[in-house]
Amino acid sequence: MRIALAQINTAVGDLDGNRALVLKNLHEAESMGADLVCFPELALCGYPPEDLLLKRDFLAGCSRSLQVLAHEVGETAVLVGTIDLCEDLFNAAAVIHCGEVIAMYHKHFLPNYGVFDENRYFAAGDEGLVIEVAGVRVGVTVCEDIWYPGGPVESEVAFGGAELVVNLSSSPYHRGKHRVRESLLQARAADSTAIVAYVNCVGGQDELVFDGGSMILHPRRGRLASSPHFVEHILHCDVDTTGLWAQRMAKPIHRYMRQGALRRPTRVLELDGQESPPAGGRPPLNIQDIAALQDEEEVLQALLMGLRDYVRKNGFQDVLFGLSGGIDSSLVAVLAASALGPSRVHAVFMPSRFTSAVSREGVESLAGALEISLENYDIDEILHSYLDQAGPSLEGPGGDVALENLQARIRGNILMNVSNSRGWLVLATGNKSEFSMGYSTLYGDMAGGYAMIKDLLKSEVYRLARFINEREGKEVIPAVILEREPSAELREDQRDSDSLPPYKLLDPILEDYIENGLTIDEMESKGYDRGLVEDVISRVDANEYKRRQAPVGIKITPRAFGRDWRLPISVHRPPRGS
Amino acid sequence: MRIALAQINTAVGDLDGNRALVLKNLHEAESMGADLVCFPELALCGYPPEDLLLKRDFLAGCSRSLQVLAHEVGETAVLVGTIDLCEDLFNAAAVIHCGEVIAMYHKHFLPNYGVFDENRYFAAGDEGLVIEVAGVRVGVTVCEDIWYPGGPVESEVAFGGAELVVNLSSSPYHRGKHRVRESLLQARAADSTAIVAYVNCVGGQDELVFDGGSMILHPRRGRLASSPHFVEHILHCDVDTTGLWAQRMAKPIHRYMRQGALRRPTRVLELDGQESPPAGGRPPLNIQDIAALQDEEEVLQALLMGLRDYVRKNGFQDVLFGLSGGIDSSLVAVLAASALGPSRVHAVFMPSRFTSAVSREGVESLAGALEISLENYDIDEILHSYLDQAGPSLEGPGGDVALENLQARIRGNILMNVSNSRGWLVLATGNKSEFSMGYSTLYGDMAGGYAMIKDLLKSEVYRLARFINEREGKEVIPAVILEREPSAELREDQRDSDSLPPYKLLDPILEDYIENGLTIDEMESKGYDRGLVEDVISRVDANEYKRRQAPVGIKITPRAFGRDWRLPISVHRPPRGS
Repeated sequence: MRIALAQINTAVGDLDGNRALVLKNLHEAESMGADLVCFPELALCGYPPEDLLLKRDFLAGCSRSLQVLAHEVGETAVLVGTIDLCEDLFNAAAVIHCGEVIAMYHKHFLPNYGVFDENRYFAAGDEGLVIEVAGVRVGVTVCEDIWYPGGPVESEVAFGGAELVVNLSSSPYHRGKHRVRESLLQARAADSTAIVAYVNCVGGQDELVFDGGSMILHPRRGRLASSPHFVEHILHCDVDTTGLWAQRMAKPIHRYMRQGALRRPTRVLELDGQESPPAGGRPPLNIQDIAALQDEEEVLQALLMGLRDYVRKNGFQDVLFGLSGGIDSSLVAVLAASALGPSRVHAVFMPSRFTSAVSREGVESLAGALEISLENYDIDEILHSYLDQAGPSLEGPGGDVALENLQARIRGNILMNVSNSRGWLVLATGNKSEFSMGYSTLYGDMAGGYAMIKDLLKSEVYRLARFINEREGKEVIPAVILEREPSAELREDQRDSDSLPPYKLLDPILEDYIENGLTIDEMESKGYDRGLVEDVISRVDANEYKRRQAPVGIKITPRAFGRDWRLPISVHRPPRGS
Repeated sequence: MRIALAQINTAVGDLDGNRALVLKNLHEAESMGADLVCFPELALCGYPPEDLLLKRDFLAGCSRSLQVLAHEVGETAVLVGTIDLCEDLFNAAAVIHCGEVIAMYHKHFLPNYGVFDENRYFAAGDEGLVIEVAGVRVGVTVCEDIWYPGGPVESEVAFGGAELVVNLSSSPYHRGKHRVRESLLQARAADSTAIVAYVNCVGGQDELVFDGGSMILHPRRGRLASSPHFVEHILHCDVDTTGLWAQRMAKPIHRYMRQGALRRPTRVLELDGQESPPAGGRPPLNIQDIAALQDEEEVLQALLMGLRDYVRKNGFQDVLFGLSGGIDSSLVAVLAASALGPSRVHAVFMPSRFTSAVSREGVESLAGALEISLENYDIDEILHSYLDQAGPSLEGPGGDVALENLQARIRGNILMNVSNSRGWLVLATGNKSEFSMGYSTLYGDMAGGYAMIKDLLKSEVYRLARFINEREGKEVIPAVILEREPSAELREDQRDSDSLPPYKLLDPILEDYIENGLTIDEMESKGYDRGLVEDVISRVDANEYKRRQAPVGIKITPRAFGRDWRLPISVHRPPRGS
């Protein structure tokens, strides 16, 4: 039995486009003699559709699209993620064969943590589904269903005799997640003595990136084949179930699973006319097994795909940003030029009297080397005009801070001028350390439509910049930018370290607080200074109001400032030491 | 049996303050001879705590706070909403008596729609709880539990003999919701032939306002007593269950309920030493039954409480905003002066050459009448400075729009100058019609920490302004402001109607699309022009990116642009007519 896993890049809401993409991949798989072609979770509507699922006409459109698709499907069976609106709304896998939707499987386990809100939309399924394709019994599951023991995988194996379990996923990327996934899927394959075929989507959607990495795992032989990350791909594989039955009979776990598993009703459907291989045989396969990406390369690819898809899916051609001569905007420049090509990338340098010669040199050399356009606007005169015309607005105990923020806001205005007049997308260049601590100006350097590195701590920004230089074997990001001390250059001799702990102390605390959820006590016992930890946490908490108005950006860590971070703004904060 | 319902205004995260507030109310109820005092859902931690519930030390603090509270509780029993962290995390009602937490009830139905995300945090309970207090059997429920038939109310009545069902709620306000609540609670009382005692919280928390309106309903006699809306209050009532038993025996519904209800285990606990009334009797009660507020009065009170609490709970003293002479900022001025007192309210007038004499007069007369401070900054010179120094940034096909937006952003900057230098909160003054259509400038008129009227359509802004004038019997909002044609005054002779359909056509479409979820077909069949509807919807959808960076504001409608509106930014939009 030949299976194809189609790792595609759909667009949320593009019902016609997604269906066309499914068909294109189906035809390619057919030409390779596939018996079964599998597509990701909710491929027909794009993932995650969020509150589009509350719109009646959107749901009707999804249902129509599935019917249209079915008419195009012949002998090669299709498993595709879609919604099913019947007695309630389900996150479903449709089985299509010979022009008809012959079965619908309903996802059992609905994730409602992290970035997920599936209980908001869907009812949970409670039936297993096994289809027999070319003599192989195939269990059907959707994403989360395979993450838990005791779920439909066990029912389908125990009561439906599944030897291959297909999992349709749309699993958002975070750093290193593919390793977690593979070990989980391998464990599920081993427990159930079944081959697992996992198909994931790729692409960027608002704050999420999907990294693909579809794979086929054998309970004993491990990974049989896998797709690359961050690109569309069809993974073909001939599934050989020889020996699985005997292994099961020899292992007591199957008898216990059968006793222990929740006895979910499990339908078994045999597809007609699939017993014999096609006349003339099938084209030979060149089985692919792609090595995983190294950590920084993986992050780099995620950022490039995230930006590229945000730009494309929102109908932009060009992007712009303020290039300051600092590391953050320099990294953004390099990433944008790489993602979109330099002709679509525009830097704006907006010096003031506090801007150093080093900054100017860095900006000019970087823009020149990247061959991106560079505009220059000096902001001093504009600043003076505010002082002349609205001087009293800057008077008060926070006058110095107000003056610094105003410079950042003048720059934000100029970027928005360009954006509004020319239709280009503004990239905000802030990093996660800044967003965490509120070391950024609302409507100033936070202005923009997409904050592509907002989920990278400052030290990760440096690490990625150095990685890019090493990978390219040259100073893509000039050494002068990498080696200078970080400064916002909003007053004379300003340094980030005037307002923040050194990043090498700060970033581990931020990571432990935000991503790892450690308490102050736990951090103290790890050896951090308690006072420092309390200071940092109190600043992170107090700056929620800024983050709430921040642009979306690409999730890189297990906990980004996006859908997976839902803190109140109004929170009583106990005095220190309490 | 004497019950007290304590409708209190807690603060999210203020464990000590909330406990002190509970104790203060407990002591007051004790002095009135209460046998049982009931507090709202999650009163000890404040509602909604959102992702604070993912913090281990926060949960530990909540558990400690409950134990500390228990030590202060004597003969008068307490029912208080809190979390229960045992084998999992539950949204719970703690029963406290004589120094001890004697039982925990776990909420069964976890809302996960609209603004709610309770599946993200809590496990669902599956046991009923009935406590016998001074001879009356009291069923315990939390919020959503009483909204569905077939839930714990029926189990507690059928298997625990409850004659009084207490419901601890933290039910967010939207316009007219109290009527829905009362009819629902009355139906539940009638179905179960039980008295229902409903206690809700009051106060503002970010985008939500809680409106109180606690009440006691009798299955036959209807509302026995009720609390006012939007203020803290203790509702005392002597519960008389006479006749309920006989009514149940005479009604077949109870036998069917017993057969039909899910047989949830239901604990019955008798509290010691509560059979006899206290020596010396109890003070007499003056039973309160407060008439509901009229629609506009209700909205007004919600806005005032929302603003007052946002300011207080975030540690601000003063607020400021741009006063333009238009209806939106004028209404905000009136509301802010009323909520906070005029000495804490500061208007900033920022005219340009496009500002009309009418605007200037309106601003001066309103600020004078309200006795709020008024600063003036002319923005023309600053605008010229941008043109001189950054002219090319404004060149392009969208140059005219860019120039309009820049004016709004200069104003936004000046407001932020004042905010940063003096520590005052900026109020954004946009309305829901503008937020819907994107008829507003990011970082310009959208700048601010709190957008208090963002959930009022333009026509509702007018309605509320007229209501205020009628209520006060004078032109609080000058007629000249109410009667002029709406204009952003960003270019010569500009009118809102240049860019938007007339509000009397636009607002009903927005309401049907956003709040009522109607499809284009449904709206056409209501008589709207199809082309107009398509235009409006496409603009609403396309401006999601702006709303995502908007300040929070007060939810007034069943569907506000906040936690209950989760649309993707990147959505493929089909060409018109498809």
